[in-house]
Amino acid sequence: MPAIILLLMNWHKITLEISTRGKGLQDITSIIRAQLQNWEVREGMCFLFLQHTSASLVLSENWDPTARADLDTFMERLVPDKDAWYTHNLEGPDDATSHIRAMLTDTSLTIPVDDSDLSLGTWQGIYIFEHRSRPHLRKVLMRVMSI
Amino acid sequence: MPAIILLLMNWHKITLEISTRGKGLQDITSIIRAQLQNWEVREGMCFLFLQHTSASLVLSENWDPTARADLDTFMERLVPDKDAWYTHNLEGPDDATSHIRAMLTDTSLTIPVDDSDLSLGTWQGIYIFEHRSRPHLRKVLMRVMSI
Amino acid sequence: MPAIILLLMNWHKITLEISTRGKGLQDITSIIRAQLQNWEVREGMCFLFLQHTSASLVLSENWDPTARADLDTFMERLVPDKDAWYTHNLEGPDDATSHIRAMLTDTSLTIPVDDSDLSLGTWQGIYIFEHRSRPHLRKVLMRVMSI
Repeated sequence: MPAIILLLMNWHKITLEISTRGKGLQDITSIIRAQLQNWEVREGMCFLFLQHTSASLVLSENWDPTARADLDTFMERLVPDKDAWYTHNLEGPDDATSHIRAMLTDTSLTIPVDDSDLSLGTWQGIYIFEHRSRPHLRKVLMRVMSI
Repeated sequence: MPAIILLLMNWHKITLEISTRGKGLQDITSIIRAQLQNWEVREGMCFLFLQHTSASLVLSENWDPTARADLDTFMERLVPDKDAWYTHNLEGPDDATSHIRAMLTDTSLTIPVDDSDLSLGTWQGIYIFEHRSRPHLRKVLMRVMSI
Repeated sequence: MPAIILLLMNWHKITLEISTRGKGLQDITSIIRAQLQNWEVREGMCFLFLQHTSASLVLSENWDPTARADLDTFMERLVPDKDAWYTHNLEGPDDATSHIRAMLTDTSLTIPVDDSDLSLGTWQGIYIFEHRSRPHLRKVLMRVMSI
């Protein structure tokens, strides 16, 4: 018998459905973490992909709520819903602005996994940033390649 | 004979050369999709990487052209070519602004593949966002890790 | 004996600790490149992940220093430390602004590796963008999946 040394890669996937409450940042770290534990992943890479163009996935400060409040306020000031020049408003005054805010932030996140947990920094949390005024059901594709 | 259960990972790669028409968003979804089908990839992760610092890769709304027009207009207003304070203008008035716009958006995209297709949301398309006034030939590295 | 055809994936990882000098862009391309050579990686994907929410990882122009100077200036103008409306300032006037600047840029980078080197474009360099006024020790998780 030949000695066969191989690195067995594992592949896990799920589509998470997350209800947002309208504009703002919503912590989903515990949801991602629970899924990793459910799969018993020890080490690898976790890929998150949001299937929408009017919301974002961001890593942000997880301790002081005023940090998230300032991110909200900044976006409201930089990309105000009331600007007169938008032409894309089929779905209301938050239509063009949602796509612009999504472009300025992230749609996907790639996070290492070590010791059976996300390798986030002490103050990092994973957030859905909803840019629509009304609540939405958002789909996050979670994929993990592990060893 | 021992039973050997292993997950066979496949690796595909190509460098795509894409001509842009100057500033603006250009849909490249069908190019990426055709390449996946050509490779007969069924499931895995697709990595796109743009080898330039004066253009971007973005996921954006693929139905109403006014959505893209508003993204263009927003960038022209946020990072106008005519601002007096730029010091980097060796290649013209779109030099510093191209790099700033690239920094505010994305250079790479990581997209799941399922059922032999990109797992994009209904309204998501893949775009090259050219920040230079003149047409350019842009290189997009496409890599796929599949099972 | 059955013929077993398999793609042997390799997995490398390290935590890099990098000292920043306070606000601004700092080139780390040579550090990443040296680590790849140390591991003798020939081909695959390189994943970089910054474990902080007050600094960023960005790909930017690597030749003319004025390009980086303009990125700095743009951020100082778009997200000035002196704005009166910030509520998150426990750690000083660069607290809310650091998180906002991080949100507008990137926390992770995914870069192809070919021919035993990063497949960067001619003018692309990898930078840590420190958003804090004071020097910090920053952790960059480097992961490589290679064939």
